[in-house]
Amino acid sequence: MKIEYEPIGIVHSPFNQPQGTPIQPSRAKNAAGSVEVYQEFVDGLCDLDGFSHIILLCHLHKTGSYRLKVVPFLDTQLRGLFATRAPSRPNPIGLSVVELLGVDGGTLAIQGVDLVDGTPVLDIKPYVGEFDDRGQSREGWLEHARRQTNVADDRFK
Amino acid sequence: MKIEYEPIGIVHSPFNQPQGTPIQPSRAKNAAGSVEVYQEFVDGLCDLDGFSHIILLCHLHKTGSYRLKVVPFLDTQLRGLFATRAPSRPNPIGLSVVELLGVDGGTLAIQGVDLVDGTPVLDIKPYVGEFDDRGQSREGWLEHARRQTNVADDRFK
Repeated sequence: MKIEYEPIGIVHSPFNQPQGTPIQPSRAKNAAGSVEVYQEFVDGLCDLDGFSHIILLCHLHKTGSYRLKVVPFLDTQLRGLFATRAPSRPNPIGLSVVELLGVDGGTLAIQGVDLVDGTPVLDIKPYVGEFDDRGQSREGWLEHARRQTNVADDRFK
Repeated sequence: MKIEYEPIGIVHSPFNQPQGTPIQPSRAKNAAGSVEVYQEFVDGLCDLDGFSHIILLCHLHKTGSYRLKVVPFLDTQLRGLFATRAPSRPNPIGLSVVELLGVDGGTLAIQGVDLVDGTPVLDIKPYVGEFDDRGQSREGWLEHARRQTNVADDRFK
């Protein structure tokens, strides 16, 4: 079964390659950028400016082939790929919760950008605490993560 | 530009059609189900059992064609599609944060299922508070939502 998607827009960011790009929005608080939503979808942005945060689902187009066991950026041991947020995945969909600074026509000004310039955007959703927060959660290996880093190296190229 | 994905697994749930399916995991606390991960991807599930919650990205295969302005389940007014969590979207990717009860081989027992039986799974990610929680967020029209409902009707068929 093949599933086919087409981008609804594109990310503009200060990062030109995965290496050196922040690993998550929460580790990219000062990184500003924008999403350019293609003209045919701009009417769907109505009311979005009421939300302080949005979820971007993107096609991580610069990732390489995936492996089912990886050493994540925040650890030194092999972990199952689906227990990590590593960017190279069977379907390389990135999930980024970013701050929405403003909406001007089809352009969304965003803060907390962990995406490479030119990344295709598949979907934009409003961030809703009731739906998306889980409060106290158990977080396996990440509770004892052995490395502290804010930016990616080249392990998933 | 076409982006092509293939499912890594499938959802088993008590819901056979979108109508009557919970609108979000947070409104489906008693709904149990499972994800069956296909054999070729099972090695990627290692370490996942340490996490209390997981993020499922799914292809919402039962949705109809989208409109850029919709009346969401929780309101009575037209809203921009990307300011809603309506299931019919240009790229109908569902984001569900569900509770992970256990992992047995390629089967994930989950609670809080807001997906129709047979939904193709595109990606599984561990839920990580630092990455996915935003604490106090501003939530536009949803702060004054005019309807209370837990399950979907047939407006997006």
